[in-house]
Amino acid sequence: MNSEWIHVTYRLETSGDVGALAEKIASDQSTGTFTELPGETEAVRKRCAARVVKLTPLEPAEQPSLPDAQGQGPYNRAHAVIAYPLEAVSTDIAALMTITIGGVFAVRGLSGVRVMDIDLPQAWDCHPGPQFGIAGSRRLTGVEKGPIVASIIKPSLGLLPAETAEVVQLLCDAGVDFIKDDEKLMNPGYSSVADRVKAIMPVIKNHEQKTGKKVMYAFGISSADPDTMMKNHDLVVEAGGNAAVININSIGYGGMSFLRKRSQLCLHAHRNGWDILTRHPGLGMEFRAYQKIWRLLGVDQFQINGIRAKYWEPDESFVKSFEDVTTPIFREDDCALPVVCSGQWGGQAVETYNRTGRSLDLMYLGGGGIHGHPMGAAAGVKAIKQAWQAAEQGAELEAFATTHPELAAALAKWG
Amino acid sequence: MNSEWIHVTYRLETSGDVGALAEKIASDQSTGTFTELPGETEAVRKRCAARVVKLTPLEPAEQPSLPDAQGQGPYNRAHAVIAYPLEAVSTDIAALMTITIGGVFAVRGLSGVRVMDIDLPQAWDCHPGPQFGIAGSRRLTGVEKGPIVASIIKPSLGLLPAETAEVVQLLCDAGVDFIKDDEKLMNPGYSSVADRVKAIMPVIKNHEQKTGKKVMYAFGISSADPDTMMKNHDLVVEAGGNAAVININSIGYGGMSFLRKRSQLCLHAHRNGWDILTRHPGLGMEFRAYQKIWRLLGVDQFQINGIRAKYWEPDESFVKSFEDVTTPIFREDDCALPVVCSGQWGGQAVETYNRTGRSLDLMYLGGGGIHGHPMGAAAGVKAIKQAWQAAEQGAELEAFATTHPELAAALAKWG
Repeated sequence: MNSEWIHVTYRLETSGDVGALAEKIASDQSTGTFTELPGETEAVRKRCAARVVKLTPLEPAEQPSLPDAQGQGPYNRAHAVIAYPLEAVSTDIAALMTITIGGVFAVRGLSGVRVMDIDLPQAWDCHPGPQFGIAGSRRLTGVEKGPIVASIIKPSLGLLPAETAEVVQLLCDAGVDFIKDDEKLMNPGYSSVADRVKAIMPVIKNHEQKTGKKVMYAFGISSADPDTMMKNHDLVVEAGGNAAVININSIGYGGMSFLRKRSQLCLHAHRNGWDILTRHPGLGMEFRAYQKIWRLLGVDQFQINGIRAKYWEPDESFVKSFEDVTTPIFREDDCALPVVCSGQWGGQAVETYNRTGRSLDLMYLGGGGIHGHPMGAAAGVKAIKQAWQAAEQGAELEAFATTHPELAAALAKWG
Repeated sequence: MNSEWIHVTYRLETSGDVGALAEKIASDQSTGTFTELPGETEAVRKRCAARVVKLTPLEPAEQPSLPDAQGQGPYNRAHAVIAYPLEAVSTDIAALMTITIGGVFAVRGLSGVRVMDIDLPQAWDCHPGPQFGIAGSRRLTGVEKGPIVASIIKPSLGLLPAETAEVVQLLCDAGVDFIKDDEKLMNPGYSSVADRVKAIMPVIKNHEQKTGKKVMYAFGISSADPDTMMKNHDLVVEAGGNAAVININSIGYGGMSFLRKRSQLCLHAHRNGWDILTRHPGLGMEFRAYQKIWRLLGVDQFQINGIRAKYWEPDESFVKSFEDVTTPIFREDDCALPVVCSGQWGGQAVETYNRTGRSLDLMYLGGGGIHGHPMGAAAGVKAIKQAWQAAEQGAELEAFATTHPELAAALAKWG
């Protein structure tokens, strides 16, 4: 990687000249404006001008990504790589976002633009990155190999702290390695972080004393106010907790940066709100670009949906995301633990394993798939473990289920 | 406004039943999941369940907002108002975002969803809101009535601090009330905040001593790291500065919340990155909803483009934005000063005035329109003031220009 430049790859779409559009973006996002100015000297340009370094034409599109009342197709498309001088951007994430992304979506004359990737030079290794990541998650949960089996409190909202503690007890008894608050649960009056910590941590500790196993519990500590979030963080730490669910888009870069510097918790990222940026394939951003920033900021565990998720996301997108979060940016230990989730009950284990490079370095999170198992939650956990055994052994789920009744029951209900 | 509920209005689009889609969103975003659960009792639902309170059908669309490979139109559309219990959300902005927006864009079976508005109950008046707003901006600039005339350093990037100070001198001499760093300029090596403050504040102070007028200078203090941003803030305050440009999307809610609590500066919001959320009319979010959150967080001055802006945004959208930021949420003083900008040179003053309720409570920001004026920057400022005089007097620009040579020159170049 060239050490003096930041390379951003955009997929551009326009009824006009796609090369001219790329040049316009490079100019607008560095030294240009709508009229010629005396101060835009060669020295200024040399210091800060961005430039188009590669343009790869793509098949034109019939339909524009953004409605185009006057225009008509075909819409020319290309991947454009624009190089921004590190000198102009610095290593600040706010500057990166404003310069390389901020104004790009406001440019006239485009019918689509999507940020495909961001390549950062070595100087960007100054960011903290994950404090725990994959290795730390294994150490804290005591799961040396194989998927970390996780669950979530259900129903997602509305339980009182004492009721939540009962669900925690049930999940501990069922044998999970990790439990989390639903991302929608933060600090409401009926179940504050303080009250949840008080109700839940004794259950985690008693279970540890009895069994020697400390289940990782991720409390929903997110707040748009970093001071409040740190108070929540401290409550968890003081009670002996070791993890938190962070709604990264709802706190923003500033909130995450502030937390990471002071955090003693393993940070489990929920990306709700992300779909608004990525669901239209001609607009927004690829997960590859997005997740790099959040990993540099310190995400330890990254929720990325799964095969046959309950949401809109196609399986191929999940498979790419899995590869993205496990590909080093600068170092092996800046990878995040992939959290495979959403509608998971074990039935997707074999396909997940086969399509993600036969990796067992993941968290596999079943919510309804554990709580709703017809033989109870313990059977739900067993079914998931059996499904992963089948995957690792190269067995078919249906065949494996003939000798594993919990998996058989899950297959009968959801298969 | 009902004090126990948060009302969010969505524009929904689907090839299926739009009422059923609204119900699904209300369920998914509160207590439901993909399978029935024993714990979802009546008590839980009562505490937290969201509900659809209004559904207003709209004309169906021929084309889907999100590409829909298998589907076919028409695509049914409606405005759906969903009520979320305050008890489930609390008054935290992170919770609001995660519960009412976060997951909504991930729901299957929709071909479009746009957040149109968010109505917040009185309990949300706990947020700080603007510290200065319109009245404070007038007090600090000493502009008692009429538009606050503003400019920006050009070229936007690449000048050394001493070169920047020369541009500041030129703009002070030209008679502007306000100057700002380009939003893309934050803290790069060649022009750090510390060095800019050192170079620029003496110019501002000398000008004040000579003329009695203190020009407001907004320094680009944004950083994704709130600690760094506060250091930048403190440098400005210690040197006697009174304003800052904040790239709100690039620092996030957490950064803004942290800053506002500690800030002594007037906060001038640049919304770069916003277009990614709003440019497709069937997706994302309306400015009306978005700007409320940022005003509650403390934005004093809000950049909202202008008539015939250099970006994609249509004039009607700007006119609506002007109304949005000047409409109280809870109190008169929670309005932000509208900053009319982008490609402005005075030629748009009459239309701006007539289409925004003949308001003079605004900042009018000319960059190239001042720097690029054929008779120099002072003439650029004069031309803008003349254009606003014409507007206020109900005169035609061309007629007014016959006796105002600076305006005439601007019209000749850009009209």
